[in-house]
Amino acid sequence: MVHPENSEEYKGLIVNKGIEQPSSVNPYLKRTKKRHLSVGDYVEGIIKGDVTTLSRAVTLVESVRTEHQVIAQEVIEKCLPYAGNSVRIGISGVPGAGKSTSIDVFGLHVLQQGGKLAVLAIDPSSERSKGSILGDKTRMEKLSVHPDSFIRPSPSAGSLGGVARKTRETIVLCEAAGFDKIFVETVGVGQSETAVHSMVDFFLLIQLAGTGDELQGIKRGIMEMADGIVINKADGNNIDKAKLAASQFRNALHLFPAPESGWTPQVLTYSGFYNTGVKEIWDMVYQYIDFVKANGYFDFRRNEQSKYWMYETINEHLRDSFYHNPMIEKMLGEREQQVLDRNLTSFVAAKKLLDAYFEALKK
Amino acid sequence: MVHPENSEEYKGLIVNKGIEQPSSVNPYLKRTKKRHLSVGDYVEGIIKGDVTTLSRAVTLVESVRTEHQVIAQEVIEKCLPYAGNSVRIGISGVPGAGKSTSIDVFGLHVLQQGGKLAVLAIDPSSERSKGSILGDKTRMEKLSVHPDSFIRPSPSAGSLGGVARKTRETIVLCEAAGFDKIFVETVGVGQSETAVHSMVDFFLLIQLAGTGDELQGIKRGIMEMADGIVINKADGNNIDKAKLAASQFRNALHLFPAPESGWTPQVLTYSGFYNTGVKEIWDMVYQYIDFVKANGYFDFRRNEQSKYWMYETINEHLRDSFYHNPMIEKMLGEREQQVLDRNLTSFVAAKKLLDAYFEALKK
Repeated sequence: MVHPENSEEYKGLIVNKGIEQPSSVNPYLKRTKKRHLSVGDYVEGIIKGDVTTLSRAVTLVESVRTEHQVIAQEVIEKCLPYAGNSVRIGISGVPGAGKSTSIDVFGLHVLQQGGKLAVLAIDPSSERSKGSILGDKTRMEKLSVHPDSFIRPSPSAGSLGGVARKTRETIVLCEAAGFDKIFVETVGVGQSETAVHSMVDFFLLIQLAGTGDELQGIKRGIMEMADGIVINKADGNNIDKAKLAASQFRNALHLFPAPESGWTPQVLTYSGFYNTGVKEIWDMVYQYIDFVKANGYFDFRRNEQSKYWMYETINEHLRDSFYHNPMIEKMLGEREQQVLDRNLTSFVAAKKLLDAYFEALKK
Repeated sequence: MVHPENSEEYKGLIVNKGIEQPSSVNPYLKRTKKRHLSVGDYVEGIIKGDVTTLSRAVTLVESVRTEHQVIAQEVIEKCLPYAGNSVRIGISGVPGAGKSTSIDVFGLHVLQQGGKLAVLAIDPSSERSKGSILGDKTRMEKLSVHPDSFIRPSPSAGSLGGVARKTRETIVLCEAAGFDKIFVETVGVGQSETAVHSMVDFFLLIQLAGTGDELQGIKRGIMEMADGIVINKADGNNIDKAKLAASQFRNALHLFPAPESGWTPQVLTYSGFYNTGVKEIWDMVYQYIDFVKANGYFDFRRNEQSKYWMYETINEHLRDSFYHNPMIEKMLGEREQQVLDRNLTSFVAAKKLLDAYFEALKK
């Protein structure tokens, strides 16, 4: 874990407090008055695989309105027994690594083998406007018009925990609707990787050839999460450079302790633009899935992830309750300054704030 | 950040609940009835650099008795203005890397240049008996008899947060007593590295030549914290192997994004046993200190660390209060099972527990 860079991170809060709202309103649906659906209608439609119902349910999940959340939670709970039958792949890479093009060709490749693919995203920094789903879809030219794909952008800005929760609930709905491949895309520059890593079966990191400056966009610690690293743009006179980078990454991964899955992370090269090397990547992913299903790690990790999110939700809520307490909000800056001025130790300052908080809760 | 391996870690609790007690009682002091010292006596003795008083104050810091803690906190607070004037070095490495021998020669090397050295440790897993300080001192043969050294083993088992707090408070006391070099040793196999990294100016990782199996003892993510990696046992016919390892680590570090200090982590080889290459290591450390003092990162990081510990203390306490609540302790297992059986989503289970907790706090 890297030393956090600012106090908002210490608190465990991400303060991207854009007003939360459903990130997408399908313009098509706007034309006619939507029929009010009951919980039963939602569940029935989703299990039938009806994408319009699925889409409306996801909008409920993303809504901040209490009455929407009540229905959403009931729908999710009823969908739970039908969920879980999928392969969940996290895909990360810094901007410029060619993520959208890659997801487009990756998605077409996996759909050639049958099944249905949902592409979701986690990007707590996004400040997307309502119509942005169209923009997102345009980035994935072929996938967006494929009949067996469902593309949904990141829930709009909020806390990372909130965004992650919505994405994880959307996975449940997609799986219940028969989507057996789930891609979860993330931006490769922040804490969202940890969140994505904690909800997928395989974590794929897209890299570019080159060292030093070109890699600075990747946060520390992310490379160690990868089950596979793939070097994009291995084409034209870039092939040798990409192969060299692959061999460097391979050596570097060798120095890391082995992941608990028992799997040795692979490094491959490909070209998203020219669609070469893509088959090899997915052969690797499926080989991994077979491997961890055989050794029991697949189920073990899914269970660990379920527990992780329960505890993560609790911990986030406990922090929220404290740091968003009006009295604490008023006192916090002053105590922090006393610590910096060396009038109080960090521990005494913490204790004074905690005492005040628990006293206030009793009232 | 690596996916946590068990739910105790999710909760953010380390459950090494050995009964906390002062880890060392100086047998010498036992012979005569100790004179009761006032807060003023402690502070005066410490600032004079009296090691016996310092030692007794550290014992207070480590005590779990409330009346000891009250005095300890007052002493620390009065010492704060005299603290901070030191270079703090974290030293980590897996068991077998030759840490004790290395610290012995490193310590003698820095003491040759004058000043005073305190060697502290963080090892939340330690179950040391009262006399263990002698065992620890024996591991550092020469340093333990040096007049300008102060060696103190890890506070005995408790939560990582508790152990880290005590070590950090001990740093304050040592600095106030004129110790201008502080080593904080840790075991290299767990979360304690993060704690140590968050209280030192330079993080030194001791490694051995070899890849794969030999490195598995190091937890993922630790290598990325290092400001310097030093390969021990570069002697005899092991020299070539050590140099090869150094070059491999150098290449691997190249693939990591640069640390925010602006410093490029160095990789060196040495022999703790034959005392070769040690000067080069400490030239590197001092070069780093000059570098970060010049670019302002030294002070920036110290401030960030003070804030970090305030927030970390708050967050740990909030979690403790929740997970050690008797009602929550009773309900938690059942809710977790409901999540694993897919009767509840992780989020709904969390919410039910939180509602019950906050309701109970009001009573």
